[in-house]
Amino acid sequence: MSEWINLDKREAFRKLQEAEKVELKKVMSGENGAARVRNYSTQMLKGMTYNYAAKCVDDQILNIMQELADEAELTEKYKELYNGAVINTGEKRLVLHQLCRGQLGEDVIADGVNKREFYLKQQERIADFADKVHNGEIVNGEGKTFAHVVQIGIGGSDLGPRAIYLALENWARERGLLKMEASFISNVDPDDAAAVIKKIDLSRSLFVLVSKSGTTLETLTNETFVKRALEEEGLDPARHMVAVTSETSPLARNEGYLDAFFMDDYIGGRYSSSSAVGGCVLSLAFTPEVFNRFLEGAAAADRLAKEKDIRNNPAMLDALIGVYERNVLGYETTAVLPYSQALSRFPAHLQQLDMESNGKSVNRYGEKVDYVTGPVIFGEPGTNGQHSFYQLLHQGKNIIPMQFIGFRNSQIGMDLEIQGSTSQAKLSANVAAQIVGFACGKDDENPNKYFEGNRPSSIIVADILDPEVLGALLAHFENKVMFQGFLWNLNSFDQEGVQLGKVLAKRVLAHDTEGALKEYSELLNI
Amino acid sequence: MSEWINLDKREAFRKLQEAEKVELKKVMSGENGAARVRNYSTQMLKGMTYNYAAKCVDDQILNIMQELADEAELTEKYKELYNGAVINTGEKRLVLHQLCRGQLGEDVIADGVNKREFYLKQQERIADFADKVHNGEIVNGEGKTFAHVVQIGIGGSDLGPRAIYLALENWARERGLLKMEASFISNVDPDDAAAVIKKIDLSRSLFVLVSKSGTTLETLTNETFVKRALEEEGLDPARHMVAVTSETSPLARNEGYLDAFFMDDYIGGRYSSSSAVGGCVLSLAFTPEVFNRFLEGAAAADRLAKEKDIRNNPAMLDALIGVYERNVLGYETTAVLPYSQALSRFPAHLQQLDMESNGKSVNRYGEKVDYVTGPVIFGEPGTNGQHSFYQLLHQGKNIIPMQFIGFRNSQIGMDLEIQGSTSQAKLSANVAAQIVGFACGKDDENPNKYFEGNRPSSIIVADILDPEVLGALLAHFENKVMFQGFLWNLNSFDQEGVQLGKVLAKRVLAHDTEGALKEYSELLNI
Repeated sequence: MSEWINLDKREAFRKLQEAEKVELKKVMSGENGAARVRNYSTQMLKGMTYNYAAKCVDDQILNIMQELADEAELTEKYKELYNGAVINTGEKRLVLHQLCRGQLGEDVIADGVNKREFYLKQQERIADFADKVHNGEIVNGEGKTFAHVVQIGIGGSDLGPRAIYLALENWARERGLLKMEASFISNVDPDDAAAVIKKIDLSRSLFVLVSKSGTTLETLTNETFVKRALEEEGLDPARHMVAVTSETSPLARNEGYLDAFFMDDYIGGRYSSSSAVGGCVLSLAFTPEVFNRFLEGAAAADRLAKEKDIRNNPAMLDALIGVYERNVLGYETTAVLPYSQALSRFPAHLQQLDMESNGKSVNRYGEKVDYVTGPVIFGEPGTNGQHSFYQLLHQGKNIIPMQFIGFRNSQIGMDLEIQGSTSQAKLSANVAAQIVGFACGKDDENPNKYFEGNRPSSIIVADILDPEVLGALLAHFENKVMFQGFLWNLNSFDQEGVQLGKVLAKRVLAHDTEGALKEYSELLNI
Repeated sequence: MSEWINLDKREAFRKLQEAEKVELKKVMSGENGAARVRNYSTQMLKGMTYNYAAKCVDDQILNIMQELADEAELTEKYKELYNGAVINTGEKRLVLHQLCRGQLGEDVIADGVNKREFYLKQQERIADFADKVHNGEIVNGEGKTFAHVVQIGIGGSDLGPRAIYLALENWARERGLLKMEASFISNVDPDDAAAVIKKIDLSRSLFVLVSKSGTTLETLTNETFVKRALEEEGLDPARHMVAVTSETSPLARNEGYLDAFFMDDYIGGRYSSSSAVGGCVLSLAFTPEVFNRFLEGAAAADRLAKEKDIRNNPAMLDALIGVYERNVLGYETTAVLPYSQALSRFPAHLQQLDMESNGKSVNRYGEKVDYVTGPVIFGEPGTNGQHSFYQLLHQGKNIIPMQFIGFRNSQIGMDLEIQGSTSQAKLSANVAAQIVGFACGKDDENPNKYFEGNRPSSIIVADILDPEVLGALLAHFENKVMFQGFLWNLNSFDQEGVQLGKVLAKRVLAHDTEGALKEYSELLNI
């Protein structure tokens, strides 16, 4: 077993604090800068690289980071995780989302079954179901085929699958692989469900209800909402609904659903896109083959994360750089900036993934830690962000590290040369320009037009945003967050911080309030 | 003329730094907490209030804030602004967006015209045009009416109008006021324009091209993209396009457009939703009357911002609290959390508004300031965020102040009672619960389940998200940002920080690169 101790007890961390800082503006200029871009780069998939030239590292700092990775036994901890140790100490659970994508180590037996086989079986059942929906074997009560799929879920059951759907929607449509358009209902705000219901043909819509416990209040509320709407149109809800849930939930083996597909307690909500939670809606929308390609990309990233050498392990390196920026350089926020409109909701998914996993103040033993942990994550697609909050990123008082994502080709391929360049070239030119602008700044006599530089960023570049690349991208960040949790000695797999609000909300609805809570309830007319 | 000096030169600011801090957890508990909720509240519109009970203030701190407001001559500076002083010192421009909504002071004469009359005239011309489109007087080349409107713009020409459209889309549809569905093309990513074009009936679509200068590269690229698509379908682009631009731009009085509506240099992009930039697309989508109601709500907020007493001036008070949190308490980030799905893009608009206005390091005279300025702004609608990044907000190492927005009623009004309460009641119960949970925390023997509390938030509450309320909401934040700029002694109306990227991107496209920039260009295959 590896040793789980706090970051500030690590010898290599102290060395990292004392190591000479890199002045980005200086090292990124001239021929040295060019050499950094060539050398500080590591492959993720064929044609897909993580480039960290514009981060505040040099060979010396990278060597200390390697020492820290070794000292913190990051690969060993990862191995324990995928071999089925109880890594989620708070809830006493295994952490098995990677197992949905591939067998990384030994067989994991839990609840009396081989878990890889369990996840594969769900994938096969979903594939079979999706194929039957697509070829018209499964139809509604009137014999009509289904044209639309609607996911009802919240948090991890919503953000990840939604971000993935949006990321591949145009890619799939262009290639004849968009079998069903998808919508998502998540918010308990009644306008959210109402707006979706009003826009689709209910008679041809299949609803995927996602709730691990089968008791999530928001989700069940929205389900009832949808069922009433179906009934009002004379449709039988049981012919329009499938459940994604745990085997022991009230939704499993329930006549109210066409079928049920299973996940389990070893897949946290924010890590569940690779499980039936993402698999059902995405296989229905895009075909099971496309979802499989997504899983294969993720599996490749998972295998890469086993590498001991941080220069060949982008997720681990990214994690170490993030910890360095947070705990040594003192930066509080990270911006995620994809240069692809299709990734419009990807930053929101990463925001959940990262902030819910590592936004904690106690270590895995429940002891308060004396160092900062997970950063605030935010982002919007470039080039839109450039005309917006980049002002603060360039010239604000606080330094915000950045994660760019860029592609060599567009998804739809409908492009035009205007003023001597295509739109795709303009898009890519902008991301290249931003990285260098942020790192090197610009001198100017006019202090208003002066750019200090020294703003660190990395970029992930791929040929095109396709299912494999998206899978690798998702797994990269999941694994980065996991390694950071190991370094900070946190349990990245529970979320006790979301409980208090639920308890208090129930009290408000039961009118069991006093003091400020009572006054706020009155202010809101509850 | 008022005196423009740095924040740290203000006597009241020093008093604010030295004033005893409020322990939120303590003051928000028991009957004292209830009294705070009742008293620390100020009206914005009828039925709409700004409640700051859960902010780290008490009467003593509020009194010092009043001193600071008086010493910094905030109302006088505002008066100078709306009376036409050159407040945008860097670009030597007037700042007149409020004038689109009402006459707050003296007549403003610039470029030889009365500017209020100029803006009103554009509104009238747009109303006339929109009415003609709606009643079928203006049709396409084949005599078909227009059913769809597409805004082509970026940054301020996109985010604000888009957020407003989404905020009112369901409200308007429900009330028979959605005359044309709207889409938005902004990103230079070719997939963005292609995806919109593929989804709409081009023959019945009207495009609104927004570019003040008439030379914005992204926007002109997307325009060409759209024009080719129209031509390929045998349609005449000149019958499908209107321009929103300045009177001196190449797009004005140009035969390539059905008509052109004007703004000017005194309306910054991020402040332009009230001008023709928002007016054209929103009047076409929702009728000119709805847009007028939006302007009236904004005008009411603008008038309220003239109040000297901070307890009756929510924008000024909000600004002062934000400066206190940033410069005295040291918080770097602010979360905007609307409990309404319709406000899904409102945080992105505020992100631009705030970060582009005050994300600066030099004062209005170009001197480096020795204090932090604008915060990072991010947010997502609750209850979704609750199942996501709220973990970090509750239990993370850094304190993130929050701005909640809540409504007593839903927009569509389609709601159901489930488990004894409606969805709207559940939504509101959650926001009430969160405010108290964040402020008061929760003791627990299990440190994993312990909530420290002391997380400050305010809430804006209104009956329903309608045009007036949305206008007041938008103007509230515009005015808050303006007052903060006054306090920090910044020019909140230029954006030099977005220029460097443009210059470098042009060099990449011209293949005039060397060093790191050349390498990144190659990495991205440009």
